[in-house]
This record gives sequence, structure tokens and C-alpha cells, in this order.
Amino acid sequence: MPLAEPKAVAPPGSGGTAMSYSKEFAVMPGSRPRLEQADPAYTDKYKSKEQVEETTRGNLERLRKAQYLLYATAQRSLLVVLQGLDASGKDGTISHLFAGMNPQGISVARFKEPTAAELAHDFLWRVHPYAPAKGGIVIFNRSHYEDVLVARVHKLVPKAVWTARYALINSFEKLLSKHGTKILKFYLHISPEEQLKRFKQRLEDPMKQWKIDESDYSERQFWPEYIEAYEDALAETSTEEAPWYIIPSDRKWFRNLAISEIVAEALEGMKLTLPSAHADIEAIRLKYHAAAAKQSGKASSDRN
Amino acid sequence: MPLAEPKAVAPPGSGGTAMSYSKEFAVMPGSRPRLEQADPAYTDKYKSKEQVEETTRGNLERLRKAQYLLYATAQRSLLVVLQGLDASGKDGTISHLFAGMNPQGISVARFKEPTAAELAHDFLWRVHPYAPAKGGIVIFNRSHYEDVLVARVHKLVPKAVWTARYALINSFEKLLSKHGTKILKFYLHISPEEQLKRFKQRLEDPMKQWKIDESDYSERQFWPEYIEAYEDALAETSTEEAPWYIIPSDRKWFRNLAISEIVAEALEGMKLTLPSAHADIEAIRLKYHAAAAKQSGKASSDRN
Repeated sequence: MPLAEPKAVAPPGSGGTAMSYSKEFAVMPGSRPRLEQADPAYTDKYKSKEQVEETTRGNLERLRKAQYLLYATAQRSLLVVLQGLDASGKDGTISHLFAGMNPQGISVARFKEPTAAELAHDFLWRVHPYAPAKGGIVIFNRSHYEDVLVARVHKLVPKAVWTARYALINSFEKLLSKHGTKILKFYLHISPEEQLKRFKQRLEDPMKQWKIDESDYSERQFWPEYIEAYEDALAETSTEEAPWYIIPSDRKWFRNLAISEIVAEALEGMKLTLPSAHADIEAIRLKYHAAAAKQSGKASSDRN
Repeated sequence: MPLAEPKAVAPPGSGGTAMSYSKEFAVMPGSRPRLEQADPAYTDKYKSKEQVEETTRGNLERLRKAQYLLYATAQRSLLVVLQGLDASGKDGTISHLFAGMNPQGISVARFKEPTAAELAHDFLWRVHPYAPAKGGIVIFNRSHYEDVLVARVHKLVPKAVWTARYALINSFEKLLSKHGTKILKFYLHISPEEQLKRFKQRLEDPMKQWKIDESDYSERQFWPEYIEAYEDALAETSTEEAPWYIIPSDRKWFRNLAISEIVAEALEGMKLTLPSAHADIEAIRLKYHAAAAKQSGKASSDRN
């Protein structure tokens, strides 16, 4: 995607991608992305879902393996932040990531309109309890970033308040990072036309009509304000510890490919290795399984 | 499974099962199950995984639909409690249930050894925060029942304390039930031989050796005490609002069939119907989608 950054040389074995998506879509710390220059319909060299299916499936398998190591070692954790306008695909991304992982090691936190109790606290108070524990993965479906997005666009707080939040967010994310949490933040970039198409699909689906609200549509008039708010947020809070990625999301299959690859790469980049057994495996084998040795383990697994 | 209850007539359309598993495996309130009379390897009329695959897949699809209604109506909720000895299949059951559901509407709470802060409170204090909200599903991987199981077997509290807990549990579950929470409690029933086989499989899997502890094995000497503790717990706390089910679990495929069916039946039994649209769908169609009417919605869905 043209973010006007010089392209790095493809790392060997990067699966045929000219450039790792972790590099291609990252917002460099200190840079200010121009979202109108990023094509939401970008799909790299691919033309169809079928062309990426195998790679995406492979990424999900990598995720499954990496998650197991994360859980087994219990030294690091992962926080995935999903942001994007309505119908940009946050829910779909979550279902897709879950398809590759053990549900017990991953959970989702949704942040909607704050309650009275939440508004009576600082804006990170309601978020902190959902930070992942060592060994775990948490996905934020919307996040503390709403407090510099919707809060800004709809003037819910004065400018002095939301501008101060960027630094507060960076400090908070540094706190998590120092504790071993890898933070990946994805902005799901769609076009207004694609959003309208997805709204139309919702509208024609009897199972989904109950949740349609005219405000979904009226909110579209604030599109430019949201884009500006996103550009500022991405510029102010993309850091080494907690980078933002701009994911072209008009094509769901490309979005899934890119995100699964970036998450897999981040987890693998932790270079975790399986802890060694603390029990004496051979002693246990002799003491407890010697009698059962004649019964083949295979027979049992066939039956189950 | 022979629980010495008179068999009811199969309800019409119950999918060929001689009796609904919801009835067959339920512990009748006031009755005391004899676990040694329940065959852990029972598989109804089925002989292999292949014979049940289609039905189980169908149950997962029923779960997916029922969960959507639960979420859309947001009036009821579901709590699934999984209990069973080590290697009885709690983790596998969770992965399987998740495969049929939207991860955002379902979460897992694990209860391990209590922390110092938890021990300084009543035994339900750490559990209550994880009760499902309206519209949601929560799975307890182990639960407050450990406080009448391991706490009893290992004499962590005096008898007077754990015997008083049955009534406290019933009151707590009634509280949740009055709020609209359906509670389903599954005891995963395996044989000591099956447990040893599964331990052996773990032992021979290099990816799992790190988590083996000799206490897994030494705990087996308490098998009769655990069975007695389970029988008492099932007898004392199987209620109309929160029934226990004894699931024959030596065969994973049968366990998955039975649990997916019981959960699907419970959700469908809520007889939830889709809320009607609150927005004026036709007005929205005209106002926002008229211009785009010539672009077919199909073209968009093909591309995504």
C-alpha cells in the first residue's frame, strides 16, 4: 500500500510477499499517515480470495502454535487493538483470529459508550482491568482510542482534554509493554462506498434488521472528521512498543491475510521456546505406565 | 446411560435419539446418582465418531443460531459449568463449543487454586464477577464446585464448612436464575483407565511434557473420595433451575455430541424470537441506498 515509505528488501522466506506486511502497513513512529493516499481496496499482488486461502490458513496454524508457546512460557502476552469505522470489519477479524487459536487463551473486550461509573473515572480506568495476563491474548474491539476519536469528533470533551490523552495513552501502553505485553494496533481502513455497501447488505438481511439505526447513516457525515482524528491518533501514538498498522480492509480476505500474518510474525518474533519438563518423565513412565505398556496407546487414540 | 430412572417416551422429532440426552443424563432434583453404575464408555446406539459427525455438526449450527437470538434479544443468558477429574475433557469440550459460536458472545472463566485475596473472601466472591450478562454465554472451566470437591477431599476446610456450601451454592444459582441465566452443569465422567491412557498420551507428546506433574498421578489415589464428593455435590445441587448432567466422556466424540445437543436444546427452549427492526427500513432504503440501487449488492459480496 502506498504509504510513501521506501520499500525494504523482502526478507528471505517471507512467503513470496515482496515486503512483510508488518513493515508495509506499519505507521513509522513520528510519521503522519495520509489516509486518503492509502487505498482501502489494495490487495497486494492478489486478485481473489482463492489465491490467498492457503497462506491465510497457514497463518492461522502459525498463530495456533505461537499461542501455545505464549501460554506455556507465560512470560509475555499480546494485546490486539481493533479500531475502524462502523462496518470496517472488527467483528469479522475477531471471528477469524479465533478460528486459529485456543479460545481459553484469548478473550475479547468490547468498549461501548461509557457508563456513569466509567465516566466518573479517568478514561483508562475501564480499560486497565482487561489488559492481558502473562501467557494470554486479549483483543480490544474498540478501545481507549475512542476517547480521542468519537470523544473528539462529537466534542464530548474539550480539546485540551483529548489532546492530552495521546501522551497518557503512550505512557499506559509503555506500562503494559514493560510488563511483557506486545501491543499491535490495527486501523481497518475502508472506503465510504464499501461501508455503504455493507450497510445495504445488513439492510437486506432479515436477521440483522433489528440492529440497524439511522445514526449509523447520519454518522457518515462526520467521515472527514473521523479520518482527521484517526490520522492524528495514528501519528501521535504509533510507537516502537505499540505500533499502528493501517490495514486495507475493503476486501475482507485481504484484511484477514494481512492481520493474521502480522500477528503471527509478532508472536513468532518473541522467540519463545517450550519449557522443559520439570517432572522426571522416564521415572513416571516406569512407575505409572509400565503395567499398561502392553495396551497400545494407539488403540486408545483410535477410539476417541 | 443407566441411571435407573424410568425412560420417558422419545419426543417426536428428537433426531432419532431414543430419548433426549437432556432427560437421559440429567440428575433428577432430589435423587442421588451412583456414578459406579454409570458407564463412562456409553455411546448410546453409536459405534464410531463417523456415525455422529453430521448430527454434532448440526448441533453446532443450532448453537450458532440460538446464540445469535440470545445476543439479539439480550434478555436471557447462559452459564455452562464444566467439572470433571483431570483429563476428563473440559478443555476439549470448550474448544468444541466455541467452534459453533461467535467468540464475542462467549467467554471462559477458569478457576484454579484461590489466591490469598480470594481466600480472604467468601467462596463465591471470586466467581460472581464472571456471571454472564444478559445476551451472553460464559463457560466455567472448574467452578465454585471445587469448594465442595477438592476442598473436601483434601480437607482444606472443616466438614461443617463444606456441607454448608451446598445450600449457599443453590441460593447463588437461584439468584442468577432469577436474573434470566440458564445454568447447565456437566460432570464429565471418565474411567480411571481412560484417564491413565490420556496421561500416557500427554507423556509421549513432547509439546506437553512440560506441564506434567507427578501430582497428576498421585491424585489418582483419591479417586474414590472424589467420586463420593461428586455424588454428594450432584445430589445436593441438581435443581430445576440449574440441573447437573452426567456425561459419559470416555469417548470424546460422544461427549461432544451429548453436550452440544443439551446446550442447543436449552437455548432453543428459551423460545427467543428476533426483535423487530426499530428503524424504518424502507425509509432508510430510499433515503440512503436509492442512488446505489443500480450497483448490485451481489457484486460486492462476490468480491469480499
